[in-house]
This record gives sequence, C-alpha cells and structure tokens, in this order.
Amino acid sequence: MSQFSIAVLAGDGIGPEVMQEANKVLDAVEKKFNVAFNRTAYPVGGYAIDTEGEALPSKTLLGCEQADAILFGSIGGPKWDTLPLEQRPERAALLTLRSHFDLFSNLRPARIYPGLEALSPLREDIAKSGVDVLVVRELTSGIYFGQPKGREGEGEEEFAYDTMRYSKREIRRIAVAAFEAAQKRRGKVTSVDKANVLLTSRLWREVTEEVAKDYPDVELDHIYIDNATMQIMKNPAQFDVMLCSNLFGDIVSDECAMMTGSMGLLASASMNEDGFGLYEPAGGSAPDIAGLGIANPIAQVLSAAMMLRFSMNLTDAADAIEKAVIATLEAGVLTGELLPDDKRENASTTSQVGDEIV
Amino acid sequence: MSQFSIAVLAGDGIGPEVMQEANKVLDAVEKKFNVAFNRTAYPVGGYAIDTEGEALPSKTLLGCEQADAILFGSIGGPKWDTLPLEQRPERAALLTLRSHFDLFSNLRPARIYPGLEALSPLREDIAKSGVDVLVVRELTSGIYFGQPKGREGEGEEEFAYDTMRYSKREIRRIAVAAFEAAQKRRGKVTSVDKANVLLTSRLWREVTEEVAKDYPDVELDHIYIDNATMQIMKNPAQFDVMLCSNLFGDIVSDECAMMTGSMGLLASASMNEDGFGLYEPAGGSAPDIAGLGIANPIAQVLSAAMMLRFSMNLTDAADAIEKAVIATLEAGVLTGELLPDDKRENASTTSQVGDEIV
Ligand SMILES: CC(C)[C@H](C(=O)O)[C@@H](O)C(=O)O
Ligand SMILES: CC(C)[C@H](C(=O)O)[C@@H](O)C(=O)O
Repeated sequence: MSQFSIAVLAGDGIGPEVMQEANKVLDAVEKKFNVAFNRTAYPVGGYAIDTEGEALPSKTLLGCEQADAILFGSIGGPKWDTLPLEQRPERAALLTLRSHFDLFSNLRPARIYPGLEALSPLREDIAKSGVDVLVVRELTSGIYFGQPKGREGEGEEEFAYDTMRYSKREIRRIAVAAFEAAQKRRGKVTSVDKANVLLTSRLWREVTEEVAKDYPDVELDHIYIDNATMQIMKNPAQFDVMLCSNLFGDIVSDECAMMTGSMGLLASASMNEDGFGLYEPAGGSAPDIAGLGIANPIAQVLSAAMMLRFSMNLTDAADAIEKAVIATLEAGVLTGELLPDDKRENASTTSQVGDEIV
Repeated sequence: MSQFSIAVLAGDGIGPEVMQEANKVLDAVEKKFNVAFNRTAYPVGGYAIDTEGEALPSKTLLGCEQADAILFGSIGGPKWDTLPLEQRPERAALLTLRSHFDLFSNLRPARIYPGLEALSPLREDIAKSGVDVLVVRELTSGIYFGQPKGREGEGEEEFAYDTMRYSKREIRRIAVAAFEAAQKRRGKVTSVDKANVLLTSRLWREVTEEVAKDYPDVELDHIYIDNATMQIMKNPAQFDVMLCSNLFGDIVSDECAMMTGSMGLLASASMNEDGFGLYEPAGGSAPDIAGLGIANPIAQVLSAAMMLRFSMNLTDAADAIEKAVIATLEAGVLTGELLPDDKRENASTTSQVGDEIV
C-alpha cells in the first residue's frame, strides 16, 4: 500500500470547515484506492498568530518540510489587517511558504461549468462560448521578491521602491511548465507581458520564444497585460494556457476566477521542481460566512485532487474526485452561492456537498 | 475674442480620419462661442518615422511647446512593431510627450451609456446598473519611468529589472486630482494598490489617507489590484473615481474601457500642474479599419471637449459638445460597431456622425 504524508494547514475563516470535507473525500480515496494519507494538522495564518504568536510557527514549517505535500485552506481576515506588513498572515505565511519551498509554478484553472453559465458576470453568449483557461503564474520571483525594496529620503521627496526582476532561468522554468500544460490541453500558450514598457517583459518574451522552439506542437502568442484584461472579458474562450509573471498572474488569475462566477469551485497548485507542492482554493477566507456551514467545499476538494495528481502521481484517484465533483454539480447538490436568489432555500450545506462527493 | 493654439497630432491608423471630425466640431464651436482655435498639424508616430525618420520629430515637440494644448489621435501599428523598444511609436512619442510635459494626471472616464448596454460584455443586469467610472491614473512615474532599469549577467543567470518608484510628492498630487474630481462627481475615491506586497503601495496608501483628511466630503476606500479587476466585472457601479498608479491605471482603465463595450466613445486627458494637456481617444489606432471611413469619431470629439474644459476653461463649449454627442447617440446616428450585427446596414459613416454632432 502506498503511503503519503500531508501537512494540513486549514487556516482562518472558512478554511477549517471546507478542509473537513476535503478530509472526508481523502478518507474515501484511501479505501477505494488502497492508499494511506497520513495527515497532520498545523496552525497557520491569523489562527497561528492568536495561538502561537506568529503566522508561520516553526513547527508548522518543519511539519511541511517532512510532508509530501501541503494541503492549505485559506488565511487572513480583518482582525489581522492592521498588523505591520511583514507580520500579516498573507506575507508571513503564504509568501514565506512559496519562497521557502521554491514553489515557482502556480497553476490556476478557471472554467465556466456547463449549466452554471448564469453565475458568470459575463454576457450569456460569452459565458456559453466554452471558457476553460489555465493560468500558469510564476510565484517566487518578480516584483514580489525582487531586491532592492525600500524607503528613503525625507519630507515630500521621501520615496518607496520595489524591484521587478527576472532571470532567464526563472522565466524558462515557468515557460516550460506552461508549454507542458498546453500539450496536455488545447496546445496554445498566451504569454502576458508589458513588453512595450518593461525590460523584464522583453526578456520574458525572448525566453518564451526560445522555449517555444522545443514545443512545435504548441502555438505561442503574446499579449500586453492591459489588453489581456480586456480580452478576458470580451472573448475568454480564445485562451487555453495564459503564462504570466508573478504580478500579472495575480491580476489575470483573479479576473479569470471572477469571470467564472463561481470562486468556490476553483482550486490551485503551487509546485517546485521536485513535485512538492502547496494546494489551495482560489477564493479567500471569506470571514463573513465562516462557521455558518454554508461555504462551498468544492475548491478545497479539487485542491486535494490536484495534490494527488501532481505531488503523488495518483492519476486515477484524482480523476475519480474530479468526476465525483462534476456529478455532484449535475445532481444539483449545490451550496447557496451557486443558486439563483429565488432558489436559495434548496441550498445544500458544506457537509452535504462533501457527503455527496464521497 | 479668446484665442487658443492647438497642436494637432493625428498620427496613424484611424487617427487622421477621426481627427477630421473633431476639427469640424471645433470649427462649429468657433462660430457659436466666438473663440478661435489656431490649429497646426504635426507628424507623430509611425507616420513621422516614415516621413521624418523618428516618431517624435523636434519640430513636433517644439510645436507642442508653443501650443495651449495637444489634440492627439492615435499611433502605432504592425508596420512599426519590430523596431527596437526605444524607437517604437508608443515609447518614443507617447511616453516621451507624457514625461517631457510632466503630464502626470491622466483622466479616463468610462461609462455605459443608457441604450447601449447590449454592447457591454457584462451580464445585462450588471450593464444596466448605472456604470460611470472615472479612472485617475498617475502617468509620469512608477515602473514606467523608475530608475534603475537594465539587463545584466550571463547565460541562464542573465536577468532584467525594472524599478517601481513613487515619491510622496508624486503620490500626493495625483491623489489631490482624484479627490478634486470626486468632489464634482459622486464623492467617492477607490484607491487601487497592492499594499499587501509592495512598499510603493504602502506609501501610496499612507499619502492618500493624508490627502483624504483635506476632503471630508469624499469617502476613501482601498482595494487591491487583483480584487479590483474582479469587482470591475462583478459590480462596476460601486465605483466612482478609481485612483491608480501608472501600471495599475493602465490595467484598470483598459478593463473599464472594455466593460463599456464601446471603446470608440471613450476620451482621455493627460494634464500637468499648469493645466497644459494632451487629449486622446482611449482606443488604439485600429489599423485594420483605417481609411475605410467607418471608425467612430466620438472618442476624438469628446477628447476635444475635455481639452476645452481642462486646458481652456471653456466649460459651456465643452458641455455643448458633450450634449451634442449624447443627442447623436440618442438619434441613432451610429457607426457600425455600436449596432447589433443584423442592423449593421444602418451604420453611419465617420463623417456622417461628425456632421450630426456639428
Ligand atoms: C495574499 C496575496 C499576497 C496573494 C498574492 O498576491 O499572491 C494572493 O492575492 C494570491 O493571489 O495568492
Ligand atoms: C502604448 C502604451 C505604452 C500605453 C501605456 O501603457 O501607458 C497605453 O497602453 C496607454 O494606456 O496609454
């Protein structure tokens, strides 16, 4: 029997309750696929600040180091928003984990599920045009981590600065990830940059062109970030894989997520070169609905499926989870936010949706 | 009789033909409001590269220096896209003009006109919710102009970098512009940043908070850029004035423009502290339809109206132009892209729309 160990970091807000459903699904996978997931829960985010004094306690980091993968919930909330930047859950926990484990390759799929088109904020004909995008975002470099970063000077001339920086190596490895993903999808990569203004974008374009030569079966296009935000609205079906730097990927992936109208369905993977990864829902911690048992667990469950696929090579089990999720959606076992206002009384709870997937 | 001198830079693509209609409208204003607009045309952009060897010839720059305002068409096209970055029309002409004249304050209004909701790529209920946003974008600093910018190293470790940089003074003056604008509108400023990651954004937030104290009648909110791209899709009616740095404003203003579905209607103003400004349509040079006489001249005409309002203080004349544009839209005198596919044969030409406004 194969064994895997998972560091479970449920975090804040709806994190714990949706994690519970992902755990149910993993239990079911253990039985059906003769595999064991040894799971250990660790504190992270605002909860860890409150209980341990810091957003990423060393025991949590150590636990992650010893695991085969991290299953992450969500972190943050108004309670911790007034802390200094470096101590806040997002930076102190999430950005530190990304950088510590060199999780450079961030995959964020966004699709409009057939039957759920009405949830999309886009016009009906656009929402029904077959939207299925994978955003591949570089996650450990660019302006998030570039040095120097600082604040200098006095009075009105005091200034702050951040550095956007990319090496060829950093661009190449994420470009390769995008082309590999496109080969398994519809064979098209759209690289997002601002090459008419930024030198980092010029290098980005050069290296992606080089990488493209190794993938003659994949088509490569370039688009400026400003135009990308327009095209995502106007004609999202034109995109297959969107390859983005850290900052542009942050923007593009959120716009793509919103375009689906169903953030509670979107999972993400953040991986390093060894296949180690952190898997988390695309939506936030949603403190306003935390604890009510109405949050959608599907994004967390699909994050677990991505973990099985990418860090554990359990393709059949991952496929089975994804099929079960689609069947659950088709059976109409839906949390409230997926239902039209006048049908909200038919909403299923967080745990009912989890049970149905199981 | 008041006299003003205008440097007319029609540029490439549809620039010249829509400029012709703006000129017609200015002729009509001269008669009706007893004012003279002394206009001189200068080459710019790709056309200037072809005829004078550079995108911004010195005679053009000199002509702009001597004028009260610049009325700009549009520049660029595939023909000049292969030139080195520094020589391309966008950088060599547009960014140089912005920086030379310190045109730090860029106003980009985007609204969904009643009756034209069907053009919006957004869902009908969202498009009909009363969308009227003014993007106030800082235009002469940030990562567009921050130093150092460069490329270093060898082999796979070769890297490129750009610097995002803002001083308090630079942030303050654009924040003031946003609050002033909000006072004349619905009294709300939403400042867009990435303060959970960028030090420039932290300073941005601090200074906007300071400026807000001088405008107790204006409400100030902050939003992260990633969330902003989502909210523009989901609920754009929540926004009044969106205050943005250079890069974030580039992204946000284009998304807002696309949201209206009618780029041919959107004007913009770029001004310095002395009220000198460059006025240009938000859409591009549209080389694919250039010369066909079907381009929408309204964005160019409304850019002229903004010029009258902001650089010449001709409020009545500006109001009159804007009213005439609305009347033209209401009369159904529309270029093809504003009509549903099955009504395209009723389209008016570029010059018919210009005549109707006159
Ligand atoms: C919380 C924040 C630092 C983070 C980011 O900007 O990367 C988030 O927006 C995301 O996309 O994962
Ligand atoms: C052409 C380009 C350099 C420019 C910019 O990024 O500012 C354009 O996109 C704009 O928004 O005016």
